[in-house]
Amino acid sequence: MVYLTRIEKFNAAHKLWVADWTEEENVAVFGRCANANWHGHNYALHVTVKGMPDPFTGFIMDAKKLGGIVKKEIIDHVDHRNLNLDVPFIPAGCQPTSENLVIYFWQQLFPHLPPEVMLHRLKLYETDSIYAEYFGE
Amino acid sequence: MVYLTRIEKFNAAHKLWVADWTEEENVAVFGRCANANWHGHNYALHVTVKGMPDPFTGFIMDAKKLGGIVKKEIIDHVDHRNLNLDVPFIPAGCQPTSENLVIYFWQQLFPHLPPEVMLHRLKLYETDSIYAEYFGE
Amino acid sequence: MVYLTRIEKFNAAHKLWVADWTEEENVAVFGRCANANWHGHNYALHVTVKGMPDPFTGFIMDAKKLGGIVKKEIIDHVDHRNLNLDVPFIPAGCQPTSENLVIYFWQQLFPHLPPEVMLHRLKLYETDSIYAEYFGE
Amino acid sequence: MVYLTRIEKFNAAHKLWVADWTEEENVAVFGRCANANWHGHNYALHVTVKGMPDPFTGFIMDAKKLGGIVKKEIIDHVDHRNLNLDVPFIPAGCQPTSENLVIYFWQQLFPHLPPEVMLHRLKLYETDSIYAEYFGE
Amino acid sequence: MVYLTRIEKFNAAHKLWVADWTEEENVAVFGRCANANWHGHNYALHVTVKGMPDPFTGFIMDAKKLGGIVKKEIIDHVDHRNLNLDVPFIPAGCQPTSENLVIYFWQQLFPHLPPEVMLHRLKLYETDSIYAEYFGE
Amino acid sequence: MVYLTRIEKFNAAHKLWVADWTEEENVAVFGRCANANWHGHNYALHVTVKGMPDPFTGFIMDAKKLGGIVKKEIIDHVDHRNLNLDVPFIPAGCQPTSENLVIYFWQQLFPHLPPEVMLHRLKLYETDSIYAEYFGE
Repeated sequence: MVYLTRIEKFNAAHKLWVADWTEEENVAVFGRCANANWHGHNYALHVTVKGMPDPFTGFIMDAKKLGGIVKKEIIDHVDHRNLNLDVPFIPAGCQPTSENLVIYFWQQLFPHLPPEVMLHRLKLYETDSIYAEYFGE
Repeated sequence: MVYLTRIEKFNAAHKLWVADWTEEENVAVFGRCANANWHGHNYALHVTVKGMPDPFTGFIMDAKKLGGIVKKEIIDHVDHRNLNLDVPFIPAGCQPTSENLVIYFWQQLFPHLPPEVMLHRLKLYETDSIYAEYFGE
Repeated sequence: MVYLTRIEKFNAAHKLWVADWTEEENVAVFGRCANANWHGHNYALHVTVKGMPDPFTGFIMDAKKLGGIVKKEIIDHVDHRNLNLDVPFIPAGCQPTSENLVIYFWQQLFPHLPPEVMLHRLKLYETDSIYAEYFGE
Repeated sequence: MVYLTRIEKFNAAHKLWVADWTEEENVAVFGRCANANWHGHNYALHVTVKGMPDPFTGFIMDAKKLGGIVKKEIIDHVDHRNLNLDVPFIPAGCQPTSENLVIYFWQQLFPHLPPEVMLHRLKLYETDSIYAEYFGE
Repeated sequence: MVYLTRIEKFNAAHKLWVADWTEEENVAVFGRCANANWHGHNYALHVTVKGMPDPFTGFIMDAKKLGGIVKKEIIDHVDHRNLNLDVPFIPAGCQPTSENLVIYFWQQLFPHLPPEVMLHRLKLYETDSIYAEYFGE
Repeated sequence: MVYLTRIEKFNAAHKLWVADWTEEENVAVFGRCANANWHGHNYALHVTVKGMPDPFTGFIMDAKKLGGIVKKEIIDHVDHRNLNLDVPFIPAGCQPTSENLVIYFWQQLFPHLPPEVMLHRLKLYETDSIYAEYFGE
């Protein structure tokens, strides 16, 4: 079993805000991340699949094809978008934290991978010093 | 003459949009950067000053003090903010491109540096593959 | 279950030296790392916790709060310090190798994390090309 | 149990090409990677071993000694070489994809590690955005 | 005057070899870089242009458009290619060192930039620890 | 004229301390950098030379030979050393700040470069976010 990882990047705006809370409560919990007019990040998404190398091609799957699926299913929906408002597969009112994003991205990507590989891990860098990971369980 | 650089980071939302243009014109020029609901970046700002090392301290200026001035005069105003709406020293209606930001940041920072150094260069990374530089002339 | 990682950095001096050995024996085993007058590193510590995202905040825990605990319990004791001489929670005479440091840091950090997360991994970069990891077992 | 990783780099040429296929078939599957006159990469190999820190040295094994073994058994055979033509331990006709390379490297390195550690993982970066991993099973 | 830099990457094979010299002479001068069957690199090209920000767009030129020109005029000719054999604008028999490549790339790119900017610098990373720069004079 | 840069790394201990000042004065000026038992860094030194590419080799000078000179004249004296105590070419009592180090390194390296190149710049990273540069004037 070999693991293959492809990294794709996107730039997006978001804020952390619970609609049922007052502004004071939101700022108390989320600090500057609750800024009303949004802020944003350069995100880097590591997509790891696992499988057996094909005896002819040496691929578990073509990394370029993997990149194409990730772009079509995830990046095209989030790049230069607002993660609170613009993304169909992020439920309205849910916080677009990195911890939640890796779960939404997993649900979005999982059905579109070819049968010869299994999705193993999503790792999302929000900044150089914070990242979240999800293994589907 | 020795050059000293301090790097400070911030996360902000912005969009590129000319108010006098139609949405079609804005999208034609700015592409995805014109997304109505904003997008954002992790910015890294390199501030370079030049001067002579002090014979006692070996500093041209204390890098921590330089970092403090950059934080107070620039980072605190732009971090977790919207560059189109929230920043007093970015003129309303001006595009917050990296090329313009290095000029606004220069004007903002210049008067606050101590006399023993000269501001030499501002370099602003917008993504891993795009950066702007300004030398004050 | 989602994994969240926060990276904190520190700069410290150390040397590798067994008090019961001669200088020749120390140099034979540790090479330049046994330099009598110390050497030092820029360390980067990756702290990974795991838990379930809170339905309101989307956090498994606030990454800023995690950073604050890591700074108070570890970084403040090792940053700009000598790892052989200055750190109360590194036993005298023990070698401050990265392999040992991740164990000492685990013991130091473990009791201070909130109940909603479990400490999953410590990863310590000593240089760009050497790092140690510990999972608590 | 502590995990220690040492990173070593090499520069090599390769192409992806199945001898039994026509040029059209090769290009259809491998795209630009099938370029007849080769292309190449700066590879970075992360070698992770696991073991217990020695009570005297604090090492699970000397990272410099680990680097020396990796250089002698792998890097010296692949650095500034052609991975399709020049490397004795890569079988003729096998594709030098990253997925296959981590398996060949594992087989090559495994017998040469000292008994106090176990080889845990090989991770090979082919570019900044693609890497393969192998855990020996 | 503001400087804007766009980074584009490519992967290529090459070797250093003077046709008029014996193999012994080539190896004596170029070492492992003279390996008959080639080796290769992941190159990163920094293209810096300078100009005045447009009062409407805030661009000195659209960074995406700059990237497109660099891709069309340079990257498409060198990516997944052999720099000694496959590239029309690298003269036969000339050494594809980074020092020469930045000159050939300058000559290739210069005529294709729009009049509102001037080409200021090309910087080419051959590995993480070696790069060449050219300013056109 | 082409510029060639070679990066070499070293790990060293140091502290900032003026012997004629009290501990209170030193801590007031240097903060944690005045820690009596030292601290340390992973330094990265960028050495830039300029010259004309040789028509046969394509080199302004062999980057490996440049690296060898930098290692012999600088790195071997500072790597795994104490910059206040162990380095012959750093004057006793002088502060080993990055600003001073680039000057001492310039004086040390300058006489040892071959006549076909000129030393253009030394750039020294002390941490990921602080670096000093010197151009010899």
